[in-house]
Amino acid sequence: MLIVDCLQYCNWSEAIFRDMREGGVTAVQATICYHESFRETAANIASWSRRFERFPHLIFHGLAGADVRRAETQGRTAIFFGAQNPSCIEDDIGLIAILHRLGLRFMQLSYNNQSLLATGCHESEDSGLTRMGREVVREMNRVGLAIDMSHSSERSILEAIEHSARPIAITHANPRSWHASPRNKSDDVLKALARSGGMLGFSLYPHHLRDGSNCTLKDFCAMIARTADLMGIGHLGLGSDLCQDQPDAVVHWMRNGRWTRTEASGGGFPLQPAWFASNRDHRNIAEGLKTTGFADAEIAKIMGGNWLKFFDQSFGGSEAVRQ
Amino acid sequence: MLIVDCLQYCNWSEAIFRDMREGGVTAVQATICYHESFRETAANIASWSRRFERFPHLIFHGLAGADVRRAETQGRTAIFFGAQNPSCIEDDIGLIAILHRLGLRFMQLSYNNQSLLATGCHESEDSGLTRMGREVVREMNRVGLAIDMSHSSERSILEAIEHSARPIAITHANPRSWHASPRNKSDDVLKALARSGGMLGFSLYPHHLRDGSNCTLKDFCAMIARTADLMGIGHLGLGSDLCQDQPDAVVHWMRNGRWTRTEASGGGFPLQPAWFASNRDHRNIAEGLKTTGFADAEIAKIMGGNWLKFFDQSFGGSEAVRQ
Repeated sequence: MLIVDCLQYCNWSEAIFRDMREGGVTAVQATICYHESFRETAANIASWSRRFERFPHLIFHGLAGADVRRAETQGRTAIFFGAQNPSCIEDDIGLIAILHRLGLRFMQLSYNNQSLLATGCHESEDSGLTRMGREVVREMNRVGLAIDMSHSSERSILEAIEHSARPIAITHANPRSWHASPRNKSDDVLKALARSGGMLGFSLYPHHLRDGSNCTLKDFCAMIARTADLMGIGHLGLGSDLCQDQPDAVVHWMRNGRWTRTEASGGGFPLQPAWFASNRDHRNIAEGLKTTGFADAEIAKIMGGNWLKFFDQSFGGSEAVRQ
Repeated sequence: MLIVDCLQYCNWSEAIFRDMREGGVTAVQATICYHESFRETAANIASWSRRFERFPHLIFHGLAGADVRRAETQGRTAIFFGAQNPSCIEDDIGLIAILHRLGLRFMQLSYNNQSLLATGCHESEDSGLTRMGREVVREMNRVGLAIDMSHSSERSILEAIEHSARPIAITHANPRSWHASPRNKSDDVLKALARSGGMLGFSLYPHHLRDGSNCTLKDFCAMIARTADLMGIGHLGLGSDLCQDQPDAVVHWMRNGRWTRTEASGGGFPLQPAWFASNRDHRNIAEGLKTTGFADAEIAKIMGGNWLKFFDQSFGGSEAVRQ
């Protein structure tokens, strides 16, 4: 079975890449930008190039849906690059095509704060897409850089869905009706996302889970079943938000970046649920879905088939670019 | 008479510095950042260093109110650095103290668009200060970097006034009641600005003037008289927005920066009114104010005295920084 995990930010190592192989993970979206500038993002890409050179038997750089199929055939994991913050394009719309050429395939229009493009889920006010945000959506549509609104707030997400000519993604979040985190999404958003052909990736980050680290696999899979009723089976996938082997300093960087002089609060990384602690555990979810009553074909879609379809549709340039 | 012009963005040259001397201009706030990154702003500062080295008999780098008095005594013009956009601090609050140390004395929290800090006057929605915006206001207060809200929108300005522990400035704008440009300011904003001890610099950019390039000196001075009734004489100064000798490509850069792929629209630089075409013409305004009925002491305040007082209060660090 093809497994696609559409969001991870691990402390990348050969050990983790071996876990991916043991766990049968076919493709992963790996975050290459939290708060980084263009220059810093380029450095992260260079680091990935060295990993691809060192571990070619385990991983390679994924650029299109075909690379997911190739990974499956070759027994390797395709790594797709994504940005959780548009800081990597700075204030320059021209960097979108540049980063796409360097292999970027997803970009969030905002992380937790207001960006130049859209509002993040931890701001008190949400003004939707900005002037530059609307221009950037058009340009991302043009070059084939998928829009991710995982950390954005309600109105900004709805406007991105509305304004984008292509389906968008919320790569890692859960329904707010299940667990009322500011990072989880309202039914209005989830329905609009499904109507527009977009994708939701279910998160396994404990702050997004009911009962946090103690969330049960059964409850998680029951939530997926209810979300399938709401959105339709064709719009669901996984985006685990797994931060395997990361030290707590990393979560402080994720929260505080460089925007505040205040000490980071909120503690370190929470403990993962026992049934999803590493890249060896994705098959537990497939089993849980089976127990919950999903058919094999449905499970295959949720575990990776739906993301593969989204990748096939999202990463090529629009006709204007191809010509 | 001491003349302070608190906003210019000229195509700097020896000829313009000589005009300043002929026109008796004691101090100017010169824009060193429109859309520039930190690195690019540093390059602009280096260009100014070369100008200070080449023309020490005409200009020098102003850092405090005392430098305005020194300029008056020595017959030179003090150049104060300002940023029209927080792009120079990128996403890094630590760059505020760094830029202050390099001589930056004013920074706008937004230019025309949404920034990471506040909303610009050409956005359709105004969400006020962002999370980072509130942190940045506190840090600017701490180090003595004056907040300028000339290009920001209503709510963002009111929140900056409210949130700032120090008086803020609108260095270049006019009352909207006189000329309904999106860049001009409402009476509510002007009254709140005056109540908080802030400063308004009257703009001479034709798009901010009633009748544009044909605005009369008499009408301009009558507007100043009405604004004095509204705000009190102690809160008024000049911020001409003079772009002497700039080619039209520069106004396209000011408008479009790097945030859009659309061609710049709105034409080139408009023609200045005949009575304010260059740095030799500031005394025409003093004469116009006299004709309008202002007393000499009032004229001295508007032409530079009020800005000097604001500079004296604004550019030193807070006690916490001094200790």
